[in-house]
Amino acid sequence: MPRLSSPRSGCPIANTLEIVGDRWSLVILRDMVNGKRRYSDFLASPEGITTNVLADRLAMLERQGIIASEPYQRRPQRFEYGLTEKGWGLLPVLQEICRWGNRFIDGTWVAPDAFMRRKPGVSDEER
Amino acid sequence: MPRLSSPRSGCPIANTLEIVGDRWSLVILRDMVNGKRRYSDFLASPEGITTNVLADRLAMLERQGIIASEPYQRRPQRFEYGLTEKGWGLLPVLQEICRWGNRFIDGTWVAPDAFMRRKPGVSDEER
Repeated sequence: MPRLSSPRSGCPIANTLEIVGDRWSLVILRDMVNGKRRYSDFLASPEGITTNVLADRLAMLERQGIIASEPYQRRPQRFEYGLTEKGWGLLPVLQEICRWGNRFIDGTWVAPDAFMRRKPGVSDEER
Repeated sequence: MPRLSSPRSGCPIANTLEIVGDRWSLVILRDMVNGKRRYSDFLASPEGITTNVLADRLAMLERQGIIASEPYQRRPQRFEYGLTEKGWGLLPVLQEICRWGNRFIDGTWVAPDAFMRRKPGVSDEER
């Protein structure tokens, strides 16, 4: 697995945040857990990610081996994105974040049981 | 509990990241779980947080009710910081991040059992 060129320390928390410690990366991974695969799907999410932030994060997550892409169309070439094993490994992090948000931030949507009980694996659409 | 003035959506993940979705907040909370309480303790951590980032995050985390401060010295007045119930609620998030870092990022320190098995509550020093 790629290591960061200049880690802040050996702490697994600090190193993980170096990769996904921002406002968007885990939101994109949430969408992939929920079966979204295409650029336009991610752009359509209610948080309103901008195209340049999305492109930047997708490239970074792929470079880190957290997601993988494959072309689904030529001319213009377009890609679908999905979680790797390393990406699915972040599902428990997403679930605990969800639990905390529901408990401590008023008015957040209650996460569907299917998401909270989800195990790493293929997306709903592929079942 | 305070809601954000303009949440990106009702998603508990997006809302949580709006608060702690950065490279530093969860590192500071890690330190508090491990019993650090003072400004100088946080500055001494190996990640090398700068004073202005630290001051900014402490103020934000306190405003969000995730940490609380109390003065331990007058002239100059100095504060100690600790986790509230809402802050301790992030412990499972920290633990899952730790687990992921240890599994997928080469060379990270293995988190002590005491940290991984830790339940929300008082810090080691207070036991």
